[in-house]
Amino acid sequence: MTHWIRYAHEGRTAYGTLEGDVVQPHRGDPFTAAEPVGAPMPLARVDVLAPSQPTKIIALWNNYRALAAKLGQPAPQEPLYLLKAPTTVARPGAEIRRPRFYEGRIVFEGELGIVIGRACKDADEDEAGRAILGYTCVNDITAADLLNKDPSFPQWARAKSFDGFCPFGPAIATDLDLDQVVIRTRLDGEERQNYPLADAVFQPARLVSLLSRDMTLLPGDLICMGTSLGVGAMKGPVNRVEVSIDGIGTLSNVLA
Amino acid sequence: MTHWIRYAHEGRTAYGTLEGDVVQPHRGDPFTAAEPVGAPMPLARVDVLAPSQPTKIIALWNNYRALAAKLGQPAPQEPLYLLKAPTTVARPGAEIRRPRFYEGRIVFEGELGIVIGRACKDADEDEAGRAILGYTCVNDITAADLLNKDPSFPQWARAKSFDGFCPFGPAIATDLDLDQVVIRTRLDGEERQNYPLADAVFQPARLVSLLSRDMTLLPGDLICMGTSLGVGAMKGPVNRVEVSIDGIGTLSNVLA
Repeated sequence: MTHWIRYAHEGRTAYGTLEGDVVQPHRGDPFTAAEPVGAPMPLARVDVLAPSQPTKIIALWNNYRALAAKLGQPAPQEPLYLLKAPTTVARPGAEIRRPRFYEGRIVFEGELGIVIGRACKDADEDEAGRAILGYTCVNDITAADLLNKDPSFPQWARAKSFDGFCPFGPAIATDLDLDQVVIRTRLDGEERQNYPLADAVFQPARLVSLLSRDMTLLPGDLICMGTSLGVGAMKGPVNRVEVSIDGIGTLSNVLA
Repeated sequence: MTHWIRYAHEGRTAYGTLEGDVVQPHRGDPFTAAEPVGAPMPLARVDVLAPSQPTKIIALWNNYRALAAKLGQPAPQEPLYLLKAPTTVARPGAEIRRPRFYEGRIVFEGELGIVIGRACKDADEDEAGRAILGYTCVNDITAADLLNKDPSFPQWARAKSFDGFCPFGPAIATDLDLDQVVIRTRLDGEERQNYPLADAVFQPARLVSLLSRDMTLLPGDLICMGTSLGVGAMKGPVNRVEVSIDGIGTLSNVLA
């Protein structure tokens, strides 16, 4: 398993592989071709960035059976999703600002993210599986009070598209034992979410296959797999949210 | 008034200004800096492309009073919108393919498009107006039968994000007399839409100002202002849709 990170160092942006606290710089990127170049260096010497620059961010709604049951929703027959603006991307560790013109509840949603490795269109499940570069942690932040503010039209795109509302990272893990993946979210140090990927209605390869029937998925595109029980609003002037997935790492951000 | 087009010629992509049927090639682009370079040439010698490469495409719902009245909807208090995937972009003249895995109705929606010229965040109306590079014609194509296929979640992003479902162009007109703008749509030569921009609830500068409170708008981003009366489904194996706006030109595409 490889852990890809994207980072800034001495004014340049690069990809590297991470082993423990050591970064091996690479030339190129994992979407086309990458080769090690130069000496390894401590992780602390680089600024970790979001691990890809998605041209689109697809966010699933109602993809976990436990949350569907709690909300009284049936498991969907097809993936239900919205798009988040690419300007929502934030790096691991970034301080995310509350929107200037929104006073309502801001909700965290810890999720598994799929990062696409190569272009993918009308793919069957095998091809879709091969088109996945790897997996990452996502906090799919939502301005919850905007969703149904106007009863005539649910504002999914708006509620989820404020700048910084999609921190993801810290790494892309190229292999995970998907049967064992657990997504945990802590709010100010207290665990609020702890749910298994196994409960998802649409598992990664099938999900990518189905989405690729709707639109061409491109290298770096991010699919947020949806969340499960335990989402909640952030309170107080400053909140730290940590999304942890064993095998990937911890995505930690402050909302201020 | 300048008419910017983007085109391919002899294997290269460039911006040019259009006067009648003559293109003046430019170095650079209208978002940063552009200067005339080389000899003018006939429009027929170039392949016209979509006039920008949007990082995001914002599409308004229920932004015209006449359509709102017909649908029994109140005029919205705030812009109601969704995002279309950037992979929906198609060039003027492009043949747009019916999705392979969708058999239902495909609806045309002729619209005025706003192209952002410079980054814009939390802008007042004056600043928002200056951030607009210009205006273009859009066909906001929709796979209508997907919208409410699952009653638990309206699939706006999905229904409007198939590859090729956002042809726009042919040019970006930098100045228009907005009070006089009329959007006309023909289906196989027969006029189906003919409505004035003056009927829009949110006019361009105000709309850009409000959207910029939600997310940073970037150069090239496209805002589809929503449609009015006369939208309809395409029938038969091949349909030509033409969206015409005086002062911009005609966007013509075939769905096959």
